[in-house]
Amino acid sequence: MKTTFEQITPARPPQDESAILSSRKQIAARYREIRAFSERLCEPLGVEDYVIQSMPDASPAKWHLAHTSWFFETFVLQPGLPGYRSSESLNSYLFNSYYNAVGPMHCRARRGMISRPNVEETYRYRRQIDEGMMDLFSYASETRWRQLESVIVLGLHHEQQHQELFLTDIKHMFAQNPLYPVYSKRPERNPATVPALNWGHFQEGMYWLGHQGEDFCFDNECPRHRVFLENFQVASRLVTNGEYLAFMDDNGYARPELWLSLGWLTANEQKWKAPLYWEKQEAEWFTFTLTGWCKVNPSEPVCHVSYFEADAYARWANSRLPTEAEWEIASANLPLSGNFVETEHYHPTIAPETRNGELAQMFGDVWEWTRSSYAPYPRYVPAKGAIGEYNGKFMCNQYVLRGGSCATSRTHIRRTYRNFFAPDKRWQFTGIRLAKDGL
Amino acid sequence: MKTTFEQITPARPPQDESAILSSRKQIAARYREIRAFSERLCEPLGVEDYVIQSMPDASPAKWHLAHTSWFFETFVLQPGLPGYRSSESLNSYLFNSYYNAVGPMHCRARRGMISRPNVEETYRYRRQIDEGMMDLFSYASETRWRQLESVIVLGLHHEQQHQELFLTDIKHMFAQNPLYPVYSKRPERNPATVPALNWGHFQEGMYWLGHQGEDFCFDNECPRHRVFLENFQVASRLVTNGEYLAFMDDNGYARPELWLSLGWLTANEQKWKAPLYWEKQEAEWFTFTLTGWCKVNPSEPVCHVSYFEADAYARWANSRLPTEAEWEIASANLPLSGNFVETEHYHPTIAPETRNGELAQMFGDVWEWTRSSYAPYPRYVPAKGAIGEYNGKFMCNQYVLRGGSCATSRTHIRRTYRNFFAPDKRWQFTGIRLAKDGL
Amino acid sequence: MKTTFEQITPARPPQDESAILSSRKQIAARYREIRAFSERLCEPLGVEDYVIQSMPDASPAKWHLAHTSWFFETFVLQPGLPGYRSSESLNSYLFNSYYNAVGPMHCRARRGMISRPNVEETYRYRRQIDEGMMDLFSYASETRWRQLESVIVLGLHHEQQHQELFLTDIKHMFAQNPLYPVYSKRPERNPATVPALNWGHFQEGMYWLGHQGEDFCFDNECPRHRVFLENFQVASRLVTNGEYLAFMDDNGYARPELWLSLGWLTANEQKWKAPLYWEKQEAEWFTFTLTGWCKVNPSEPVCHVSYFEADAYARWANSRLPTEAEWEIASANLPLSGNFVETEHYHPTIAPETRNGELAQMFGDVWEWTRSSYAPYPRYVPAKGAIGEYNGKFMCNQYVLRGGSCATSRTHIRRTYRNFFAPDKRWQFTGIRLAKDGL
Amino acid sequence: MKTTFEQITPARPPQDESAILSSRKQIAARYREIRAFSERLCEPLGVEDYVIQSMPDASPAKWHLAHTSWFFETFVLQPGLPGYRSSESLNSYLFNSYYNAVGPMHCRARRGMISRPNVEETYRYRRQIDEGMMDLFSYASETRWRQLESVIVLGLHHEQQHQELFLTDIKHMFAQNPLYPVYSKRPERNPATVPALNWGHFQEGMYWLGHQGEDFCFDNECPRHRVFLENFQVASRLVTNGEYLAFMDDNGYARPELWLSLGWLTANEQKWKAPLYWEKQEAEWFTFTLTGWCKVNPSEPVCHVSYFEADAYARWANSRLPTEAEWEIASANLPLSGNFVETEHYHPTIAPETRNGELAQMFGDVWEWTRSSYAPYPRYVPAKGAIGEYNGKFMCNQYVLRGGSCATSRTHIRRTYRNFFAPDKRWQFTGIRLAKDGL
Repeated sequence: MKTTFEQITPARPPQDESAILSSRKQIAARYREIRAFSERLCEPLGVEDYVIQSMPDASPAKWHLAHTSWFFETFVLQPGLPGYRSSESLNSYLFNSYYNAVGPMHCRARRGMISRPNVEETYRYRRQIDEGMMDLFSYASETRWRQLESVIVLGLHHEQQHQELFLTDIKHMFAQNPLYPVYSKRPERNPATVPALNWGHFQEGMYWLGHQGEDFCFDNECPRHRVFLENFQVASRLVTNGEYLAFMDDNGYARPELWLSLGWLTANEQKWKAPLYWEKQEAEWFTFTLTGWCKVNPSEPVCHVSYFEADAYARWANSRLPTEAEWEIASANLPLSGNFVETEHYHPTIAPETRNGELAQMFGDVWEWTRSSYAPYPRYVPAKGAIGEYNGKFMCNQYVLRGGSCATSRTHIRRTYRNFFAPDKRWQFTGIRLAKDGL
Repeated sequence: MKTTFEQITPARPPQDESAILSSRKQIAARYREIRAFSERLCEPLGVEDYVIQSMPDASPAKWHLAHTSWFFETFVLQPGLPGYRSSESLNSYLFNSYYNAVGPMHCRARRGMISRPNVEETYRYRRQIDEGMMDLFSYASETRWRQLESVIVLGLHHEQQHQELFLTDIKHMFAQNPLYPVYSKRPERNPATVPALNWGHFQEGMYWLGHQGEDFCFDNECPRHRVFLENFQVASRLVTNGEYLAFMDDNGYARPELWLSLGWLTANEQKWKAPLYWEKQEAEWFTFTLTGWCKVNPSEPVCHVSYFEADAYARWANSRLPTEAEWEIASANLPLSGNFVETEHYHPTIAPETRNGELAQMFGDVWEWTRSSYAPYPRYVPAKGAIGEYNGKFMCNQYVLRGGSCATSRTHIRRTYRNFFAPDKRWQFTGIRLAKDGL
Repeated sequence: MKTTFEQITPARPPQDESAILSSRKQIAARYREIRAFSERLCEPLGVEDYVIQSMPDASPAKWHLAHTSWFFETFVLQPGLPGYRSSESLNSYLFNSYYNAVGPMHCRARRGMISRPNVEETYRYRRQIDEGMMDLFSYASETRWRQLESVIVLGLHHEQQHQELFLTDIKHMFAQNPLYPVYSKRPERNPATVPALNWGHFQEGMYWLGHQGEDFCFDNECPRHRVFLENFQVASRLVTNGEYLAFMDDNGYARPELWLSLGWLTANEQKWKAPLYWEKQEAEWFTFTLTGWCKVNPSEPVCHVSYFEADAYARWANSRLPTEAEWEIASANLPLSGNFVETEHYHPTIAPETRNGELAQMFGDVWEWTRSSYAPYPRYVPAKGAIGEYNGKFMCNQYVLRGGSCATSRTHIRRTYRNFFAPDKRWQFTGIRLAKDGL
Repeated sequence: MKTTFEQITPARPPQDESAILSSRKQIAARYREIRAFSERLCEPLGVEDYVIQSMPDASPAKWHLAHTSWFFETFVLQPGLPGYRSSESLNSYLFNSYYNAVGPMHCRARRGMISRPNVEETYRYRRQIDEGMMDLFSYASETRWRQLESVIVLGLHHEQQHQELFLTDIKHMFAQNPLYPVYSKRPERNPATVPALNWGHFQEGMYWLGHQGEDFCFDNECPRHRVFLENFQVASRLVTNGEYLAFMDDNGYARPELWLSLGWLTANEQKWKAPLYWEKQEAEWFTFTLTGWCKVNPSEPVCHVSYFEADAYARWANSRLPTEAEWEIASANLPLSGNFVETEHYHPTIAPETRNGELAQMFGDVWEWTRSSYAPYPRYVPAKGAIGEYNGKFMCNQYVLRGGSCATSRTHIRRTYRNFFAPDKRWQFTGIRLAKDGL
């Protein structure tokens, strides 16, 4: 199997580039780049910032750094590099996230109890893995390479996922601190007004869903399969803070008829009155961001809402959330561009103008909740062995999100990419795109 | 809309009967019959048995009796019977289950804290509702009748649902009592051997899903819509205790690779080692039933398993659970017959012999877990007003079950009927039917 | 040991009555009287009222009836009545409260899950025990009688304790019911004004503390021992609702400096703003009683306050709670009379006028929190065997209360009687008497 | 009031030294010494080790460093140093432990969520406080000095208390880490055998209890007052691991008759089978210490037991725990020497030989649980203002411990010193000394 990295946008055909890019050299370059980016994201941190786990869903920064290295150690170096010696017998226990097939693991909720290995040791561990990988890139036989290539590429996508989690976890941790540390300087933004929301129309019919071609994808995007869709419409842009404030002002958080039963329970138990990270000071709403506190900008997309809030908002707006099939079909001919982590904004931005129901902001800015429960595609078969635990076992009580966010790498996202979170989670960069039945 | 009761089995065409049955007289007869059956189910109870709520999911028997009456009072008599006077101002608070639109309600988990209204008063309340309903049957104008007919029929199906819950709740409550009371005498059963499991084959193609016609159905069975299905196979009978014991003996409860991640967590937290109500005495498994403790019969269908257990069993058996669409298509030409509550067995029975992949036990015995998350059908619109809270707001983090059980009324079930429970629930009569991808 | 019942007031010397009263006849009469009183207290109940356990601290009424019978069965009939046959093997499991030495027991918090044995069977069980006891009173040999007499008397005091718990548990259960059932008709009360609070003065010195003489007492009242007390003062009457309202109006529940640290935590977690059973309707405070809701009468003693509230009130009032030694010394020459359960008021009453620091209301009305942690007296030795579990093992994290309440039998209380509850409990009839250091 | 530090042992009379030592110079020297010791204790830590809070009872190391500085800032510099400017407005919020009178505070259980102020900033904060204090030592007027002297001395004792908490919290945190970091190198110890346990006898009589003289003490040691004690005996040394193992081997953790009811519940809920930090590897018990894992030495004192375990052990050994009065009287003529933090063993040591019931190990090694609930002494009056929250408000549901431990400073402990913890706490260096009634 030939896997390439630059071609993950089906819009840009792989063709002749493919042979070149798929070489070890290209993957090695990609490895160095992605690994370096993980460390670059850590630059604003002090040693103390690496240690804390602010809630069971989050992980300490140093755990992310170690775990992504452990992935390469466990699934590439140990099986693939003759003579490779694990540095520490306990690493496999401490940095295993959830791979039961690999052995027992440290309790997820207690990752913040561990001051050692310390930050320096963690970086040393990364160095060791990197050296092993460089050896492997240089010296692996062709046979061995063919066996390992796909899991290395998986490991790089895995690390990109943790880069996003790193950012959302740091944001959550800083938000717990009454000193409200700032992760990054606020970029200047041009004042802009939000374009009118209009609707893209899509015809009923049989469609192909899921990943096609030789490029990398996660197993949950396969197999490609047929679905029947009825006419539907998709909103041209994301729901804005201003629109969401209208929902709030219309008593949205206090009207049970707008909510799923479980959402209503959750919102009451957790006393939700606004998106996560919002706080009212006198008459004004503020939001905590990776660049510090700022006024809620009514033109920006609403962010840090749960599935429950997205669903309630949609009901209030006489709309609904799209299914993941609708989302994927609607995105078919769009360029894979947007406000990704590379912009270093770490915050969603105002939608550009579009015309004739052309869809904007489908990629980047915020992950878009769909109404689709995360489930296996027809004839889905998880990968063999421990890697098979990557996706399949989470297909229960989670909802699919699509399109990536301002914390996602552009080289990581795909049209067929299926992200998933439980419906009460709010600490990811999650937002709302509306859909409607078509005529 | 004309709604009839005897025609809910698509196998028996409604045709000319319809006109007759749809008359008030028929519905009134049906009302008397169903209401009487609720009370007949209570015959084995002592006064004390009506009071207890053995867990938040369950309700006291007297609450079921009152709540089903409250439904008629609130949605039929108050709007529809001129001069009707509610007996007690607090009833609406105490006996409202979850209809926010009707007003505030007593906390679900505290239904067992309420000794008054007592059992006699509860029956008196039922009498009052019944009298009001009889007046309405006799004297309602034709216009009024047309407005109320469908909600009355809904109320009767609602009461049948609570009859099933009544039985599962009593079973759960008796199981908490070290004296293990017996609800009903054990019927004699002929010894039988379980037929071999074989597979029914179904062709890929476009299918219509959901309720068709004028007969009663819940709003969640609508609208009828098209789905595309690939080739699939469905097992000819339910999974038996004997088969499930083989899974247990093969260490099924201790192998994480067989389980969904959430299922594994749940099974460990709740220390599941066998289906609910099973206990091992020396080398022998016993199960508590509504007819008391008995040895686990390896030929009977396994029962009281969660979605998580059903899913893990299927994975162990190199199969999967069917989707609800597959189940509905597979049941297309089967007679709506089986081991329902009318048999008064209150326990699933051994499958009959079938040939050539013909499906047995699709109706009755146990509810069959599907792998389909409970979600709205395309273009689903909940009913207006409080009745709209009946189904739609529960479409999150629940899984669809099909086919009815030994505690369901035969006149209540349909091929398109969508039952739903959270994936960790086990106190309903829930079992397993396997499916596989087709060739 | 000769134990008598009528002489428990040290003020009335036992003398010559003793010989007569100590006879079996007298104890048998006492047995019949106390057992009948338990049943008389149940007269206002419907069958449903016997079943519910409204919180883990409380027990269902039928459990109280059965447990007190179990006590006689286990500690008297089984060891003492030749040929006695236990009715049900499970009774010992179900009705054992906390006697580990007797065997395993049903989980305390699940006493409300058990509809059987039902109410009728419970009364039948009482009958059987009563018959056994009558046989024993009639036919036990003198030797046997001497062995059993003291535990029978203990069993009678035990039953009187449960009579008080029965009333507080019923009150708590009715308070959970939005229908607010009434246990008993309100007695007419003469309007009265509350006398001024003044102080009784007591001299420093060595005092004897604890039970003296041959009369019955619990083992925790022994041995009699010496304590040194400094000068102290005790308030002439209980703190009234009016005084407590002044504390509330002075922001007493919102001022941490008035509270023990643990009390402050508890009050905040449980959102205490007033005594248990109080509710404000518009500007007026109401309280739920066994005779229904009534306006808070500012002249009546405050009731249903925790140790934490009593302590905070005392600090606010520039006073303190008495130690149990001070209380016992202060009560030395007072008649053992007051508002006990025999008055059938089930609610504390206004203090009578007293002069010269004479103490009123020391007995009856409300249990008086002392600042003494419940601890063994010097050289305390618990009784041998299971009976030794009666008191000693609870001597941790509880506070001593003195004097009895409007739910205590006059024949049950003593000057040396040590009641005890955890400092956050409020469902007993508990109130406040102030003390101060003396000059 | 003249307060000195070297004279805190009543055995060594203050006399003429007093005048000299009480000078500012001496207190300033003492200040430098104690503050430096806090930082010296931190030397083995990496930056990451300062951040973690391993349970709500514990605090991060950097919080201890900051909070003890905050104490001087809040109670000395702000009121006492003209022109002093607080560094950070939030410090008062973050580093206030429980002084409600000073203002709101950060939630105790969330001290580990705060990566900033970081370790360097924390030390900078200490520097700033130290500079302010040096100014104050140099320039305060005599009047001002007299106002502040006692609170400065209190602040130093407060810091010594936190030095002990620092050690127990680091131990707890390291014990959560599967890498089991070592805080300090193990000192060599001479093999020694444990001397026989014999009993010191004390006569009944009136005794004075509590602090006497002008030296520093906490307010809870006052006022000195009289108590009457009966004859009693006190064990000549602490209970050893070997003796405790005999209790364990005799099924001590499985016999409810040995336990307080609350202790039995706690031991079962928390699955206690041995002291905290013990683990069995094959047939051998090991214990985690600040110098790493080592075999349980049967000759050393048992440590890290709760009050519940101490009480159960004593009951098993046909003894009891001493009251705090007995302990204080028994220690009357002993030198204030022992195994304190200055030895840098951080672990209790084997008792020396003693004769004739002479008591060993009364000071140092382990805090000794007494059976006395922590309560105010007669006529106790807490200090005015926020400082009054230091002790008094904790006098509920805690038990008094006496004598100091291997983590206590020798200059911190006193014969009359009252330490206190809830009866289920085990992470302090807590052990057992037996007592008995005397003849």
